[in-house]
Amino acid sequence: MSKVTCDVSVTLDGFSAGPNQSEARPFGDVDGEALHRWMFEQAEQNAAEVADILTARAYIMGRNMFGPIRGDWDRPWRGWWGEDPPYHSPVFVLTHYAHEPLPMQGGTTFYFVTDGIESALAQAREAAGDGEVSIAGGAHTVSQYLVAGAIDELRLHVTPVTFGQGERIFDGVGPLNLEQIGEATGTDLVTHLKYRVVR
Amino acid sequence: MSKVTCDVSVTLDGFSAGPNQSEARPFGDVDGEALHRWMFEQAEQNAAEVADILTARAYIMGRNMFGPIRGDWDRPWRGWWGEDPPYHSPVFVLTHYAHEPLPMQGGTTFYFVTDGIESALAQAREAAGDGEVSIAGGAHTVSQYLVAGAIDELRLHVTPVTFGQGERIFDGVGPLNLEQIGEATGTDLVTHLKYRVVR
Repeated sequence: MSKVTCDVSVTLDGFSAGPNQSEARPFGDVDGEALHRWMFEQAEQNAAEVADILTARAYIMGRNMFGPIRGDWDRPWRGWWGEDPPYHSPVFVLTHYAHEPLPMQGGTTFYFVTDGIESALAQAREAAGDGEVSIAGGAHTVSQYLVAGAIDELRLHVTPVTFGQGERIFDGVGPLNLEQIGEATGTDLVTHLKYRVVR
Repeated sequence: MSKVTCDVSVTLDGFSAGPNQSEARPFGDVDGEALHRWMFEQAEQNAAEVADILTARAYIMGRNMFGPIRGDWDRPWRGWWGEDPPYHSPVFVLTHYAHEPLPMQGGTTFYFVTDGIESALAQAREAAGDGEVSIAGGAHTVSQYLVAGAIDELRLHVTPVTFGQGERIFDGVGPLNLEQIGEATGTDLVTHLKYRVVR
């Protein structure tokens, strides 16, 4: 069965976003760019980790990661990533509000799943074949899949910043049985940590 | 002026102890040993980091790190570390309850400070001379000194475990301006991260 991975950039105090996310401030009232400077300012040094993120053949994300609209889909929204999102694969978006699939350029199609995380995972597994399924975020989606015991490999990208408030990926998760895979790697803008989640 | 450092072992979800600490369970209702396996099972690989912890010429710790007694000193207690604690220097213990100094073997003396964190820091600076002052823990002591802007160098030892509850060093601290010092190092039981706290 396909491996389920999860890549998240987090602050040193465990947040993957601040409070009050909006279209103008996708990461909320914090310096959200601090979470991803390593990807852009040090693309070469971190090329292997970025490639690993984009290896999956299907992705799952929460609706709040997909966009700023809450409640009904009251206006068009095609994601944060332009017409050719980096996923190049099916992306299953968890939501309580049905929406037609959104085919994008480059092989990405956003599918909207209204019947829960297990259904989304089943659909993503089927789409991925023997490829990886990646839990893309945000915090609440990651914590739900951790609680469900569905993540095989957790890959944290720890950035040298603290937010002090916002959304934590481990909130409500409780103790996990983790095995670190190898030693940490990284730069002065990020530390890559990989864990096998033992069940 | 002497540099103020702070070394803390933390879980991946940011805890340095679990809930309900007691004499029988110094780290509370969690697998507290998981925080320090790296020191004991991999002493050689981590010798440099342990040496750095023991470089300081004065230490400050919270009363709950010193021992399990809460409220009045209602029975003798000489710390968790036996008659020759590893500090070999003055250790200033923050408490609301006065206590005579406790000289131990090997150069460690526990002094009990009842007039607050600034007083403890001033006394530790004086004792350290041009050596380092180390904030030794626990979580609440670390967060108080972070909030006060008194820590120059924060050294986290991140262990591959989550507690899900307990005491977090960053609780109530808010956003910090951190500069990571070099790249992470470590083993499969610990990741060492060093930060300059910029004011």
